[in-house]
Amino acid sequence: MSILLEQAQAAVRAAQQKALEMGVKMNIAVVDAGANLTAFARMDGAWLGSLDISIKKAKTARFFDMPTGELGKISQPGGPLFNIEHSNGGLITFPGGIPILDSNGRVIGAIGVSGSTVEDDHAVAQAGVAAVRDVR
Amino acid sequence: MSILLEQAQAAVRAAQQKALEMGVKMNIAVVDAGANLTAFARMDGAWLGSLDISIKKAKTARFFDMPTGELGKISQPGGPLFNIEHSNGGLITFPGGIPILDSNGRVIGAIGVSGSTVEDDHAVAQAGVAAVRDVR
Amino acid sequence: MSILLEQAQAAVRAAQQKALEMGVKMNIAVVDAGANLTAFARMDGAWLGSLDISIKKAKTARFFDMPTGELGKISQPGGPLFNIEHSNGGLITFPGGIPILDSNGRVIGAIGVSGSTVEDDHAVAQAGVAAVRDVR
Amino acid sequence: MSILLEQAQAAVRAAQQKALEMGVKMNIAVVDAGANLTAFARMDGAWLGSLDISIKKAKTARFFDMPTGELGKISQPGGPLFNIEHSNGGLITFPGGIPILDSNGRVIGAIGVSGSTVEDDHAVAQAGVAAVRDVR
Repeated sequence: MSILLEQAQAAVRAAQQKALEMGVKMNIAVVDAGANLTAFARMDGAWLGSLDISIKKAKTARFFDMPTGELGKISQPGGPLFNIEHSNGGLITFPGGIPILDSNGRVIGAIGVSGSTVEDDHAVAQAGVAAVRDVR
Repeated sequence: MSILLEQAQAAVRAAQQKALEMGVKMNIAVVDAGANLTAFARMDGAWLGSLDISIKKAKTARFFDMPTGELGKISQPGGPLFNIEHSNGGLITFPGGIPILDSNGRVIGAIGVSGSTVEDDHAVAQAGVAAVRDVR
Repeated sequence: MSILLEQAQAAVRAAQQKALEMGVKMNIAVVDAGANLTAFARMDGAWLGSLDISIKKAKTARFFDMPTGELGKISQPGGPLFNIEHSNGGLITFPGGIPILDSNGRVIGAIGVSGSTVEDDHAVAQAGVAAVRDVR
Repeated sequence: MSILLEQAQAAVRAAQQKALEMGVKMNIAVVDAGANLTAFARMDGAWLGSLDISIKKAKTARFFDMPTGELGKISQPGGPLFNIEHSNGGLITFPGGIPILDSNGRVIGAIGVSGSTVEDDHAVAQAGVAAVRDVR
């Protein structure tokens, strides 16, 4: 199973709403189970450089089925996966990417958010994840 | 001036609605005046290969401020811009990409649609353009 | 549903066998429903340049759910999809790539073969497709 | 001399068998003396992001004729080859890639494995190497 467009758009809307409440300008990307872009929104005035980062965060979270920040902990100098970021056309391994699971705990996609501090990015991504409800 | 997210999302919604009415599954991308992705939707079951094409159509339409199909007429063998598709990381020059103008006739972005015949792609893109109204 | 490794390897083995019978040296690639490489074999002495082509043929066949040669008919100069090959990091649109379907007619992957004439490539790809049986 | 397909496939089979015994899901890539992909298998359900990593590990091991983990020791901050990962379209320098030698000690190819911890990846790669016997 993969995330449906309806679910992906709900995630983007919720993330946008959260970002507005926090007063931050975000790029928000949702990918499906195949790590293909499914829904995307770039808020007015968000950093140009964050567009690509948001998509790479979403893909990274799905590539390894874990929050991007978790991967970043083990890709540090001296860590077991040092410089894994050079794979897959470029990974982003700091917080802001989170897998999206269905009610059976299976990964159906992921969300990636970029535009503020990594704490803000992660919080907005969480709001997106929380908005995904099983449709079937 | 550049397209606002609100306008870009209106364009995506209208294009999605049009595609549903036509019974086709589309990838729909909207870029801003800087040719940066602003809003995107991938309808459930749309061709995998059309994702990249929809984004490239939107970028191509903004890169040269003309519908992609117009550029394709002059990129043919023997034409003045033969194989211009090799530039900018890959252009798509068949129909489905259309610039979006404001009420003063200035290009503020573009839409790219891919997933069916080029005629269908162009029709869905037109529905997206028509939905953009000046917000200011 | 996506092709299983067991099925993909059966396809590669059958294609290899066919190539041996025909006296040709092939690169043989099988991708899954997400267009991800699943099984691959490069026969001793096969053209170096055919490696990438075999993978691109398999991906192209899955990207658009049709044999690569069919896509090539409409990507010719003056055709509706002229120069579509510039999308998705490079497509190959001459024969040798074929979608693989399950018993319900759903595309579960694709095979791409390169190393001889396009007729030979297509024949070897067909032998691969014929070897895939439903496992479930 | 370069690895033969027969040897490369024996390496993939042995690595697959080892992974099954260990209960891990791996991507397994074998490259020849020219660092060209020769045989590949992606086990059902293996991480999406590990596909590219397995191939990059195999190439890296052949590019420098040493296990990837050895290169990683000298690519750390302050080390002599800091950030060598930026070369050759992306290297992977943590364990899981191992050169394959013939009975005369000459490098004839390499194997790269990715899908679990780097210790598991390396163990599965070793099983693959051990399965390569001189055919001539």
